[in-house]
Amino acid sequence: MTANELIRKKRNGAELSASELQFVIDGFVQGSIPDYQMSAFLMATYFQGMSSDETSTFTKLMLHSGEVIDLSAIPGVKVDKHSTGGVGDKISIPLAPIVAACGVPVPMISGRGLGHTGGTLDKLESIPGFRTDLSIAEYKKVIAEVGVVMIGQTKEIAPADKKMYAMRDVTATVECIPLIAGSIMSKKLAEGIDALVLDVKTGIGAFMPTYERAVELASALVRIGNSFGKETVGFITDMNQPLGYTIGNWLEIVESVECLQGKNIPDVMELTYTLGGMMVLLGKKAATLAEGTERCREAVRSGKGYEKFLQLVKRQGGDISFVEQPGKYPRSHYSQEISLSENGYLTAIDSLEIGFSSIVLGAGRTKIDDVIDPKAGVILKKKVGDRVKAGETVAIIYTDQKNAVDPAAERIAAAFRVGREKPVPSPVVISQVDRNGVKPFGV
Amino acid sequence: MTANELIRKKRNGAELSASELQFVIDGFVQGSIPDYQMSAFLMATYFQGMSSDETSTFTKLMLHSGEVIDLSAIPGVKVDKHSTGGVGDKISIPLAPIVAACGVPVPMISGRGLGHTGGTLDKLESIPGFRTDLSIAEYKKVIAEVGVVMIGQTKEIAPADKKMYAMRDVTATVECIPLIAGSIMSKKLAEGIDALVLDVKTGIGAFMPTYERAVELASALVRIGNSFGKETVGFITDMNQPLGYTIGNWLEIVESVECLQGKNIPDVMELTYTLGGMMVLLGKKAATLAEGTERCREAVRSGKGYEKFLQLVKRQGGDISFVEQPGKYPRSHYSQEISLSENGYLTAIDSLEIGFSSIVLGAGRTKIDDVIDPKAGVILKKKVGDRVKAGETVAIIYTDQKNAVDPAAERIAAAFRVGREKPVPSPVVISQVDRNGVKPFGV
Repeated sequence: MTANELIRKKRNGAELSASELQFVIDGFVQGSIPDYQMSAFLMATYFQGMSSDETSTFTKLMLHSGEVIDLSAIPGVKVDKHSTGGVGDKISIPLAPIVAACGVPVPMISGRGLGHTGGTLDKLESIPGFRTDLSIAEYKKVIAEVGVVMIGQTKEIAPADKKMYAMRDVTATVECIPLIAGSIMSKKLAEGIDALVLDVKTGIGAFMPTYERAVELASALVRIGNSFGKETVGFITDMNQPLGYTIGNWLEIVESVECLQGKNIPDVMELTYTLGGMMVLLGKKAATLAEGTERCREAVRSGKGYEKFLQLVKRQGGDISFVEQPGKYPRSHYSQEISLSENGYLTAIDSLEIGFSSIVLGAGRTKIDDVIDPKAGVILKKKVGDRVKAGETVAIIYTDQKNAVDPAAERIAAAFRVGREKPVPSPVVISQVDRNGVKPFGV
Repeated sequence: MTANELIRKKRNGAELSASELQFVIDGFVQGSIPDYQMSAFLMATYFQGMSSDETSTFTKLMLHSGEVIDLSAIPGVKVDKHSTGGVGDKISIPLAPIVAACGVPVPMISGRGLGHTGGTLDKLESIPGFRTDLSIAEYKKVIAEVGVVMIGQTKEIAPADKKMYAMRDVTATVECIPLIAGSIMSKKLAEGIDALVLDVKTGIGAFMPTYERAVELASALVRIGNSFGKETVGFITDMNQPLGYTIGNWLEIVESVECLQGKNIPDVMELTYTLGGMMVLLGKKAATLAEGTERCREAVRSGKGYEKFLQLVKRQGGDISFVEQPGKYPRSHYSQEISLSENGYLTAIDSLEIGFSSIVLGAGRTKIDDVIDPKAGVILKKKVGDRVKAGETVAIIYTDQKNAVDPAAERIAAAFRVGREKPVPSPVVISQVDRNGVKPFGV
């Protein structure tokens, strides 16, 4: 058996056996299969896919490439949320403390920016001092003490996935259902959860641009989760414009804090309350989704969610003075307002283009070892449905790289679509996928 | 522009612009695009292909990644031949000196054994002392003095291709027409040629197993060659049995020398005369293909082709006493005769299996740094169409590795197919591909 033969086999569309998949994954982890063979294998898999059996085996191999954390000593039903990633998707930041404030323990292992989307870890690390690299022992202590913990994948957790995820990010092999499913579920199953809520994005800025593909991914994830004995529910949600008004790591922390303080940013809060409601329901702290949602709203109104967030930031080494006084944070050297030349209504904001532009500004990576500028990014001044006038500011960009300003500004301006008619508002949460299948949300 | 975006673009089936392709190739050569991104790009290209324009641009970029040799100081129309590789394909060895003896300069840069096929360089190097690693200055001197030169790819020639080729070989991205075409043509266009003849193999032992794919490759090569102003003609030729009676480096030199001395090995000579006739025609030393072929036959009859070969071997450091007295050459420690258990006619000899078996015997490499045993290989005693009796010797294997004897013997015996009826002879040269399209050969 050689890596070359197995790449060829996958390239030709054949199903790999468990021992063949093990050869590839072990070889990659141990270094006997070099990165360039693995990336060719991943691209072949992108085109040829994996069978349901292959995907389960793949997930199991990734999971057991590392440690599976035992949180049985922590009382309560531990529930986590996973999003497939969007542009401006800062939902985990307000969501996790809100759900924890409702009494449901949230053990969360998050990822970094991937492709054109940001990552929760990069966002959290923009808070000075915030440590996402806790050991597993510390992780267990924080969840026990605070009821919520947010860390990155440790070296013990699915090391195969950690190495593979970094590579997929820079080789355009992210958007592949079995690879996504294996990656997500191997990490989530290792966290020590009892149940899981999934936010699967669809639309132009999502990894799954069509609704059908999003349902396909959600179904694969729900199938794997339930097959490992963890109650798993997915939502298909809209990514046809960035979530909220900010894109960029620190900018998104500021917006998240505003939400926790009670500001109603409609799409961000609608999504937070739906996902949170389901987490509270699965965590057995509510009898229905509506009751769960209401408990989340109450956690914001009472300030308990924000309090939990401050407690979390402090416990993980973050300097809460920046959270409390965002004005203290350093500013980007360059900023520029973007306006359009038309009058009308915003009908769409191409979140894929916004995502890629924010990378140009320094908010994301193009190579594994790129350093992120936490200040860099975009603030939207208008969202879909808003009226815009020619010359009016629709967005502001922030960067320390002078030569990034013009290309990013041009690209961002082109991402806005203007029409004469006010567009019909589209729902943020489109449908729900669980062990019973798919159903439209709210029906 | 980032490598990741361009991989994605190709993955999604879009056409890359010249500046985008340049970004990829320059980045790869200079190291700013790491190997794992390049291999993902190559696999995406395997699935999505390249347009005609992209393939030309790709070739141009590979060509200009290095030096383009100027042979304009050498009088005459310089013509080379390229074969896509076969089993027992020693044609370059008799062909180049025969064409040179007809007054057409042949500047030839060849490759090493690849997969199950042998390489001209490995064959030439089996002649004690023969040097294929001439500098470009020496290369120019030899072609000026002898009228023919046969070397390997120097570091100055298409370095992008050299680096990319090594990677394609181990990432299952070899069998991709635009990549093959770009690789072949960038090297050939760098040699200083004015015209080119191509031998594109089809059949079980060829890289392009189907006739349709062989025509597709030949057409791509012819289109590129002509777009660079080099008259290019291709032939689709049969690889459903090995060429000639020998497979293995020194064994093939001996057979080539016998051909140069006038022995008629039908398939070898039919192919040599067809390719050679076309080279003489393109080299303006004949008015028709038939006249070119006749000039080649005359060069063999007169002994001038053989004389030219001796001159070439001597000039490149080879010891011609081994060519003149092959009995002096060392013998393999082990040899074994292969016979079959059936009576009948040979209907096919699986050249893929023969090729892989000869690697087992030591005649080829399974890893880049394997050392070849020049003596090792197979001599066929029967070819397709011959009558065989049970127990009669159909082949003899030669090796220094005792434990290779039995596995190779078994595999080679299984490569022979026997039928009751004498098979209808199939042509060696099937069709011709040139700027006017494809036409059956000899019609």
